[in-house]
This record gives sequence, structure tokens and C-alpha cells, in this order.
Amino acid sequence: MIVILKNNVEQAQVQQLVKDFEAQNFAVHMSQGTNTTILGLVGDTAHVDLEKLLTIDIVRDVRRISEPYKAASRSFHPQDTIVQVGGLRIGAGTFTVIAGPCSVESKEQMETVAASVKASGAAFLRGGAFKPRTSPYSFQGLEDEGIRLLTAAKKATGLPIVTEIMSETQLPEFEDVDIIQVGARNMQNFRLLKELGHCNKPILLKRGLANTIEELLMSAEYILAGGNEQVILCERGIRTFETCIRNNLDISAIPVLKRQSHLPIIIDPSHAAGNTWMIEPLSRAALAAGADGLMIEVHNNPKAALCDGAQSLDLPQFEALMQDIKKRAAFEGKELQ
Amino acid sequence: MIVILKNNVEQAQVQQLVKDFEAQNFAVHMSQGTNTTILGLVGDTAHVDLEKLLTIDIVRDVRRISEPYKAASRSFHPQDTIVQVGGLRIGAGTFTVIAGPCSVESKEQMETVAASVKASGAAFLRGGAFKPRTSPYSFQGLEDEGIRLLTAAKKATGLPIVTEIMSETQLPEFEDVDIIQVGARNMQNFRLLKELGHCNKPILLKRGLANTIEELLMSAEYILAGGNEQVILCERGIRTFETCIRNNLDISAIPVLKRQSHLPIIIDPSHAAGNTWMIEPLSRAALAAGADGLMIEVHNNPKAALCDGAQSLDLPQFEALMQDIKKRAAFEGKELQ
Amino acid sequence: MIVILKNNVEQAQVQQLVKDFEAQNFAVHMSQGTNTTILGLVGDTAHVDLEKLLTIDIVRDVRRISEPYKAASRSFHPQDTIVQVGGLRIGAGTFTVIAGPCSVESKEQMETVAASVKASGAAFLRGGAFKPRTSPYSFQGLEDEGIRLLTAAKKATGLPIVTEIMSETQLPEFEDVDIIQVGARNMQNFRLLKELGHCNKPILLKRGLANTIEELLMSAEYILAGGNEQVILCERGIRTFETCIRNNLDISAIPVLKRQSHLPIIIDPSHAAGNTWMIEPLSRAALAAGADGLMIEVHNNPKAALCDGAQSLDLPQFEALMQDIKKRAAFEGKELQ
Amino acid sequence: MIVILKNNVEQAQVQQLVKDFEAQNFAVHMSQGTNTTILGLVGDTAHVDLEKLLTIDIVRDVRRISEPYKAASRSFHPQDTIVQVGGLRIGAGTFTVIAGPCSVESKEQMETVAASVKASGAAFLRGGAFKPRTSPYSFQGLEDEGIRLLTAAKKATGLPIVTEIMSETQLPEFEDVDIIQVGARNMQNFRLLKELGHCNKPILLKRGLANTIEELLMSAEYILAGGNEQVILCERGIRTFETCIRNNLDISAIPVLKRQSHLPIIIDPSHAAGNTWMIEPLSRAALAAGADGLMIEVHNNPKAALCDGAQSLDLPQFEALMQDIKKRAAFEGKELQ
Repeated sequence: MIVILKNNVEQAQVQQLVKDFEAQNFAVHMSQGTNTTILGLVGDTAHVDLEKLLTIDIVRDVRRISEPYKAASRSFHPQDTIVQVGGLRIGAGTFTVIAGPCSVESKEQMETVAASVKASGAAFLRGGAFKPRTSPYSFQGLEDEGIRLLTAAKKATGLPIVTEIMSETQLPEFEDVDIIQVGARNMQNFRLLKELGHCNKPILLKRGLANTIEELLMSAEYILAGGNEQVILCERGIRTFETCIRNNLDISAIPVLKRQSHLPIIIDPSHAAGNTWMIEPLSRAALAAGADGLMIEVHNNPKAALCDGAQSLDLPQFEALMQDIKKRAAFEGKELQ
Repeated sequence: MIVILKNNVEQAQVQQLVKDFEAQNFAVHMSQGTNTTILGLVGDTAHVDLEKLLTIDIVRDVRRISEPYKAASRSFHPQDTIVQVGGLRIGAGTFTVIAGPCSVESKEQMETVAASVKASGAAFLRGGAFKPRTSPYSFQGLEDEGIRLLTAAKKATGLPIVTEIMSETQLPEFEDVDIIQVGARNMQNFRLLKELGHCNKPILLKRGLANTIEELLMSAEYILAGGNEQVILCERGIRTFETCIRNNLDISAIPVLKRQSHLPIIIDPSHAAGNTWMIEPLSRAALAAGADGLMIEVHNNPKAALCDGAQSLDLPQFEALMQDIKKRAAFEGKELQ
Repeated sequence: MIVILKNNVEQAQVQQLVKDFEAQNFAVHMSQGTNTTILGLVGDTAHVDLEKLLTIDIVRDVRRISEPYKAASRSFHPQDTIVQVGGLRIGAGTFTVIAGPCSVESKEQMETVAASVKASGAAFLRGGAFKPRTSPYSFQGLEDEGIRLLTAAKKATGLPIVTEIMSETQLPEFEDVDIIQVGARNMQNFRLLKELGHCNKPILLKRGLANTIEELLMSAEYILAGGNEQVILCERGIRTFETCIRNNLDISAIPVLKRQSHLPIIIDPSHAAGNTWMIEPLSRAALAAGADGLMIEVHNNPKAALCDGAQSLDLPQFEALMQDIKKRAAFEGKELQ
Repeated sequence: MIVILKNNVEQAQVQQLVKDFEAQNFAVHMSQGTNTTILGLVGDTAHVDLEKLLTIDIVRDVRRISEPYKAASRSFHPQDTIVQVGGLRIGAGTFTVIAGPCSVESKEQMETVAASVKASGAAFLRGGAFKPRTSPYSFQGLEDEGIRLLTAAKKATGLPIVTEIMSETQLPEFEDVDIIQVGARNMQNFRLLKELGHCNKPILLKRGLANTIEELLMSAEYILAGGNEQVILCERGIRTFETCIRNNLDISAIPVLKRQSHLPIIIDPSHAAGNTWMIEPLSRAALAAGADGLMIEVHNNPKAALCDGAQSLDLPQFEALMQDIKKRAAFEGKELQ
């Protein structure tokens, strides 16, 4: 961490500040120019409150040199993390496809979709029981009944399940869920993240619509710091000035996250695109850029979907996508889960 | 709501779609061009799922004409809402200043700050007990003890209090709180919003860093739809490409929200700026643009603040700001609360 | 085009407006609800000034249904455009790599780089003679001498050349240039675009850092409307809230532009990334998503580059990239130019 | 400037780098931690190419401490710049209103508007002769004839005139123009900026829709570095994710620019808003936040305007605005020009 002092400060003040830092167990290296004095702080700066330093009278600016996250950082954990669910392995050379409807709607729907996506090659079944909707007048999900239908489909097909949690109070209902999803709008619901740090299930953490990559890793850090090391990151499109598409899939996030962190990365092209015709090109791009998997919305009858039908593939479309993905995963030398 | 059909669709399909809409109690007006057919749906479209319409085979595009919110809309509620707390009135020609530290830290701090901001003319005392922090390693607030210290300061000074809730599970602890704040990162925590719709306290709803004005009003709608009509909107800076400031205070949000909604609007220049030297010009601009009040971070010793010290005014700075605000409120013909 | 009228307007005013539109050769279709009247205008609306309509007293809102561009639109030109330069074909199933240094610096540099990128498989040589630099104190390019060195390298290697124009006054110096590049900062330099519409050379039009896809196509329309049909679009990263990378490569722009337009699309991962280590994953993603080519910065000695060294591949790195691209182009069934 | 070296570099390499910097006349201060070595460069770093430093093998990161602009910086020029035109003074405690139509359309229009805005209290007349339009099919301005009509209105009323230049080739036609405007889309047209640095007329430089404040000041630096010290900055709204308004007026830009630079700042609420009803609140906010003036679009018949009618005030609306502005300028202690 670098602390830049104001011009023309008195030597005595500088000495005092150096002593204060040393008292906090930092080694301090001073670099004194004609106008500017710079202090380099060496030690564990992840816990330093940058804003507090800025209130010191003689301080002009403060800059971090190392990342504010530690458990999520590749510097401290060079090996790729592999999240294991049953015999499946997410990360480190594998490719995992999670598929299913935006929301769980009925027993028949879940049975049909689950059997079909399994046959096409999906490794996990997804489906929303608790739905975060912008409008209070939109369908809010089947809630507990949704969890029960998902669990039934899991039993019927053997596919492990992924579903979204909206509040830490719902944890008891997630006992049979294999991967707990945190939605984009809850990426900084810190109460929820803390609780998930104490549970022993893999967490799929979605990036917020306008959250930086550093903020995503800080939210992962909340879970990791609590003791839960099974975190999967998910990029699902960011909010920009562009109006002709719903969100811009941030393809650069894949190489950046791979470099900064050891956690696996799943791409959700369905929510980024908001339509079906962009899912194939975005899925191809994600795989080519190094993603560890995809999460795809699939519905047996998109026109009748209670939620997000416009972006849901139907069963034959998903089958066609998987045929393509299989060839491409082989080309990339990735093992399809 | 306008439904634009694809080119060259068959007449029979159009007729069927019209029948379907009519069965849902919409009046349908058809406009048929050489290439394009447009259907205008008349009726209560606030509950229509736009995305579902997009999945219909012959539909090319759908556009809303009226807003998707109703209880929050000025169209259905032309009079300004006035939120009353004790004898204080927020909205409709008044100007309310809420002041206090970012986080509650100690009995002495709260007593000192409360007495001082009251003397300077603040109408409400704020202070964070539960703190949403980006890093798990940052100070997370005094929690229950923070609420107790706030309540003690309220008793000592008579100032009503405003503090942030992070989860619906904390509601029982907010019994003595006068206005419950929902933070920017929880603006779309829909579980929380639903619960707040059933409580009988005023809610200060902060706009998320990258949420549209429509989304802010939809979140207000969650609370209003639950039966709680005491909602105060709060703009606190939005996220843009600019890097030399923390957030861009969206000054246009004031006239836009005043036009679209009847709810009062408070501006938080402290979080937008992230520094102290911009608070005065931003406060002046907010008042001139028509805001109903300000929320300002004030600390008795910003250098020792456990949170957000860099943007906290000290007591004499706040006193100077209030002297200026008093003259300006008088100039605008607004009654300072 | 849809014109939404204000509530409760008088019938006579509506009739007058309909007449006015009909006098402008539009067929008008009226849809009258209990509160809202909607007019659908049918005809050539590309030339209608939307903002002018908004000033009409009884008009509440106006929405376009068809795109405001015509020559660039796939609706009016369903076949892919192929830009031909010598025997090379850009677009429609081919894949073209343009490579070379950010700026032309010396005879030796250009000879070395040109020979090497040709050997590695590049189809075009790029190099900046006139450089748009944010700072007036940065190297501004060798200007005329730069064009001469580029031309010499073209003669020596046979590689056709691509270089950037900054003002219409420079056109006479571009006689030997094969493709004229318009930089991101000049995407809406309409004087320049108009002049390029009258020249008979292919134009590589880069998207501005914060320009929408519609604006990019409108700028292409300026060139096409002037009679020059050889336009190549180039996506090079957009500006967002993210600070850890220079720009976000907009991967969605590829499928969107392919759907909306018939023009070929080249991706510039070098400027998007601003570093070398992201060029490979972004290039792979671009190819997989359907791009028609890449423009890559390559330097024989990046450390000594006068411009953009940080994002320039050295010669062995480019050779390695091309080995990978060749395999991938074959996998996609694309003919490498 | 701070240069952060990679971990575990060899001492000999560090010594060599220090020597290289010293050979470039920098004083170098080294700060060596257990893992990280930091070099502080002292000297004239405005001309250093940051990206070039990043290509050095042992360099991990480089950060500027001082701004990359000098002539535009308040550090080197603490006094406010006052731009003088005839007897009028822009900046430093004055308030200047520039008013007129988006585009010059006819002799009658210019005479009517000029006489009226003068009577209402405008100090300058504006009007576009050369119009940068997104669509090639929109009205492109009367060009030379527009300049003639503007000049005639200047002679008739005595109001000095402001109009936009689109290319350096137009300079000869701007002889009678008092302030030359550079539009948002040309803010980084560096050829144009360079030429304007050599002319002896005040330049009104508009901020690009997605340009940072630093980039705006770097573009001002182009003009100042050429020897022309009469630069007026203009904020006119920035592009964000918000879709319910055209652009977000960046109110924070006023205090930031006042702190960073000595140049006067004019606000253009008309282009930011894109409608008439937001012009009054935005104008009030700009004045209260410390702007030196306003640029307002006014038309004698907005409904018939060939450009931007939706955001043009009519003559009585402008008269009402000026009545309000006069009272507010007096309240702020600003001298209306």
C-alpha cells in the first residue's frame, strides 16, 4: 500500500505518521522527492481501511498495490479450485452444463425438462423456486412447493440440482439442493453471504449487473472467509449504455478472473442475452475464452413459461446446442461433465 | 401496451391472438400497414409479463406505453405524499436534513454528534448499526448495541432516528427506529421489501448504484403494494465510466422522480461524493433542483471514524453547511423541518 | 413508427394531425382506447425527425419500429457483403487477420514486422502514420513519412496495407493505402465520413468507445449513402464501469451486427484489452462468436514501441497466435485469407 | 510517478532500471519491502508514456501521482481564467447566458430569436450552421449561409455569436464568429484541436458523451499547448445506463473541474435533458453548484424547428427562465453578463 503525502508537510508530522504505521506492525519505506513524500507500507494490508487513511491531515492519496481479497486470490492459492458434487467436478479442465427452466412451474414440466436435458448431456438441473422479480405483480415462484418439485425431478433422473436462495432464513429448505445459487441482485447481500460461509454446500455466486470484478471477488471472499471453500463464480452480463440488447456479456471477465482467482467460472448466456438467438454464439465464445461451464435456460414450452420465456431454449434447441458444445469441448480438450 | 407483429403473418393467426388478448379482458385495437400489423392493448397492463408476450411466434416486439408501477405513480396519485414522523413533515414544500455518523461507534460519539447536529438544525439523527461493507474484513457495525446507543441518543436529544436494516430478520430490533433505511445494495432484496410493506414505519429507500429510476419506483411499489404508504426515495449517486469521483450524483433524478411519482426525495451527497469538499456544492444543487431534503454524514472526529471518515463533515463544517442551507431553503420558500 | 397521443385530446386535433401525416405520404392507422390514442405511420420513416414529432402539442411519445438506417440494414440487403481487396475477400465465410505495429516508427521496424507477420499468415499489414493521442505531449506519428514507410513495406512484401485517417484533408496522401481506417474517436466525425462516402476505397469503421450499435450503423450509413459500399465494421471494446481492464470487448456486438447488417465485422482485441495476455482468449472468443477477422498489434520490440507497447504482441507471440487461429478457423469452416 | 516492480526481481536489473530513469533526468527514490520494490520518479512526468513503462520486464504496475495536463491545471495556474469577448467577461464570479436555436434556419428566425433573447438578458447568441447529425438523412445545417445569417443577427442586435466548427478546413469562414464551439463528438478530433490552438479566438469545448473529466482537460490542453489560452469548458450530459432521460447532467463535474482547473465552465442543460421541462431545475442546480454560465436552446417556434425542437424553449419560456436566473445570480453574488 502506498501513502502519498501532501506537499510541504513538516518533518515531525511525517515521523509521527511513520511511527503510527510501525505501531500497527507495518514496515514503512519512505521515498522523499523535492515536493512529494511517499510511504510504502509493507505487511498485511488486506484489513486496512483505505478511507480512514484518507482522513489523515497530511495524506493526499492512498493506493493499494495488492488485492483486498486473499482467500479468493490466485496469489495465495495458485492451484485451480475444483468443486465436487457427487462424482462431478467443476473447474480445472472440465466443462459443466447446468440447464433447466427459469422457474419451476409444475411436476410435469420438471419431469419433462429434467429427462430431456439429461438425455442431451446436461450435468445439473436448474429451476427457480423463489424468484426475484422487478415487479411485485410478476409471478414470484412456487416457493417451498418448487423446491419439492425440483427434488422430485432429481430423484427421478439422478441429476443434481441448482436453485436460488433469496434470504438466509430459507436455508433449512435447501437441504436437498446440491448447489445454492446467489442471484445477481443479492451479490452484496452480506447477511446472506455470511450465512452461506457457514454452510457446507457449493455456492454459485452471480455477479451483480453493475458490480466490478473486484467486488465479485470480495463477495466470494465473504463466503470463503466463513470457511466454505466451494464457490463457483458466474458472469451473466453487465449493464452498459447499450440499449439494443438486455445486458452485455463481459467476455473479458473470463481471462481476468482466471488470472486473479482460482475459483471456477460459469457463464449464463441466457440472462445476458434476454433472447434465444444469441445463446449459441455467446456459448461458443464463452467456451473458447476459457469458461468452465454454462448455465442455460431450457423450457418444454417457452411460450407458456411463467418467467423469462423469451430467453428459454426449447428442448430440441437445447439438444442442438449440446451437440455443438460436445464437439467444441472435445476440440478444447475439456472433459464434459 | 403495443404489440408489433412480424411481417407477413397469416390473418388467422392474428385473429387468434386478438381473441386471446380479449379473453384476458383487454380491448384490442388493430392497425394494419402494408407490412406491419400493430395491436394496441387497452386495460390493466401493469400485471402483464412483457417477456411472455415476446415468446409468441408472430410477435416481433412489445412496448409499454404506461408505467409498470401504479401505487408509486403520480398518474394515479397526483398529490404529493407527505411522510409524517411526530410533528415533522417530509415532502410537499418542506426541507428535511438527516445527519449523523456513518456508523454508531460509542455512547460518547452518539451523544456528542446528536447534540451538535440538533443545535445546528438537523431534524433527524442517522447512524449505522448494521453496516453493509464490501470487504468481510471491514468493521461490520455494533449491531444490536448500535441500535441501543442510537435509541439512547434519541431519548437524550428528542431527535427521531434513521438507521439501515439488512435483513427482514432484524425487524424486531427496529421497534424504536423512526425511519427504516434500505441501503443501495438491498434495493432489490425483494424479501426484505415485502416485509417492509407490512410494517407501519416510514421507509427510506436508497437507489442502487446502477438501478434505473423505473427500477427504483418498482422497488417502492413492492412496499406500497404491501400496504405501507410511507416511502421516501433517496438518490445517492450512480455508477458511470468516470473514475475521478466515487459516484455521479444523478441530479436529473430529482425532476424526473417529481414528475413520475408523488413520493418525497432525499439526496445523499456524502455517499455520492466520497469526500467532504463536494458536499456543499452538491447540497446546494440538490436543494435548487427541488429535493425534499438531505442526508449528510457527520462525525465528531472524522479521522478516527471506523467507517467512511473521508466523506464525513466534522461538527463545525456541518454547522457552516446548515447556515447556508437555512438561507437557501428560505430563498426557495421551503419550510425547514 | 408509432405516435402515442396524450390523454383526452380533442377529436378535431387528432383529425388534423392525421391529415398532416397523410400530406407527408404516410398511411396512418389509428388505434383508439378509452384513454390513449395511437397512430401507426406506414411509409418511409427513415427520414422522419423523431424529435420534431415530439414537439407537437398532442403527442406524448414516439417510437420507431424499423431501423433508422437502410443501406446498412440486412432487411434491405439480405446477402452478406464481401469487401474485396486484390484477391482477398473479407466477409461471408472467410477469416482475415490484419497485423502490424500501433505506429510506424522506422524503415527497419516496418520491414521486419511486415516480413514476419506475412510469414505467420497475416493477410494485411497495419501501422499508424497519423496517431490520435489523448495527450498533446505523446508521440503523434511520423505522418507523411509514415505513409511512405508503410507503402515501401507493402511493395517489399506484397501485403496490402491498412492505416488510419484523421481528417478529410489527408485523403490525397492515402492513394496507395488499401483500406482506410476511421478511428473510434472519429466514428462521428461526419465531415470525414461524408468524404469517405465519395472515395472508392474500403473503409474500416471502428466503433466509438461509448457508441451504440445503432450509432455505428448510422455512421456506416453516412459512407454507404455517399455511394461507397465497401464498409467493414470494427468492434474494439466499449467503456463501462469496470476499472480493472481498459475496455470491455462487446462480444454480443458480433451476433447483433450479423443480424442487423450485411457488413463484415473485424474484432480488435488489442485495443480492447490494453495488454497482451488477454489477446489470445479474446481472439478465440471472437472467432467462435462469428467474427470475420481480427486486427492485432504486433511489434518487433514492444518494449521500445513509441505507442501502445503494453498491448503489442512480439513476433513469436503473434506466430503462436496464428498457429492457434489457423486450427480454429479450420474447425469453424472459415477460409483464412 | 510510482513504478511498482514485480516480486523477486534481481538486484542488478533494478539498478539498471534506476540508471535508465536517472539518464532521463528523473530523481529516483527506492522503497524496498520484503516482496515488493517501489520506485518513485521525481521530475517532469507529464511527458512520460505510461504504457511504455508497462512493457519493461520487471515492472508490474505504474501509477501517476500528478495530473497528465499542465496548462489546464490549477496547480500551475491558481488564478481563475477569465475569457473576455468585447466588454463581456466569462468566469471568476460572472454568470453568462448563451441562447439561440439549435440550427440557423432563416433570416426571420434569427432576427426574431436574437432580438428576443437579448431583451430577456442573454449575453451571447448561439445557432448551428454546420450540424453534426447522427443520421445522414437529417437536416445538416445551412452551412455558409447559416454563418452569414448569424453574422447578420449579430450586426442587428450587437450580440456576439457562438457557433460550432466541424473541421479545421472551415476556419476561414469563422472570422466573424466570437466564440468557436467544438461539439461533444469532436472533443477528441485532435487535428481540429491543434488548429484551434493556433487561432486567436475563444473556444467553447464540449465534453464528449462518455469522456472522463481528465480526457476533457487533456483536450483543453491540446488547445492551450498551441498557445490559445481562451478555453471555456462545457458539460452537456454524459451517457449512462439510465434510459428514461437522454443524458445525465454530471453536476459533480462543476466542483471537480473548479478544483482541478482554472478554466470557466458553462452548462448546457438543453442537450443533457432532451426536453424542455427539465431545463429550469437543471439550470438552477448548475448555478447553485458553481457554474459560470448556461447555454440554452431557444426557438421562436419549436414545433417547426428543423433540429432539436423537443428541447428548445420558446421565447416566453426563455424570458421566464431568465427572470428566475437573474434573482438566483444575485443571490449567489454573481454578476450577470
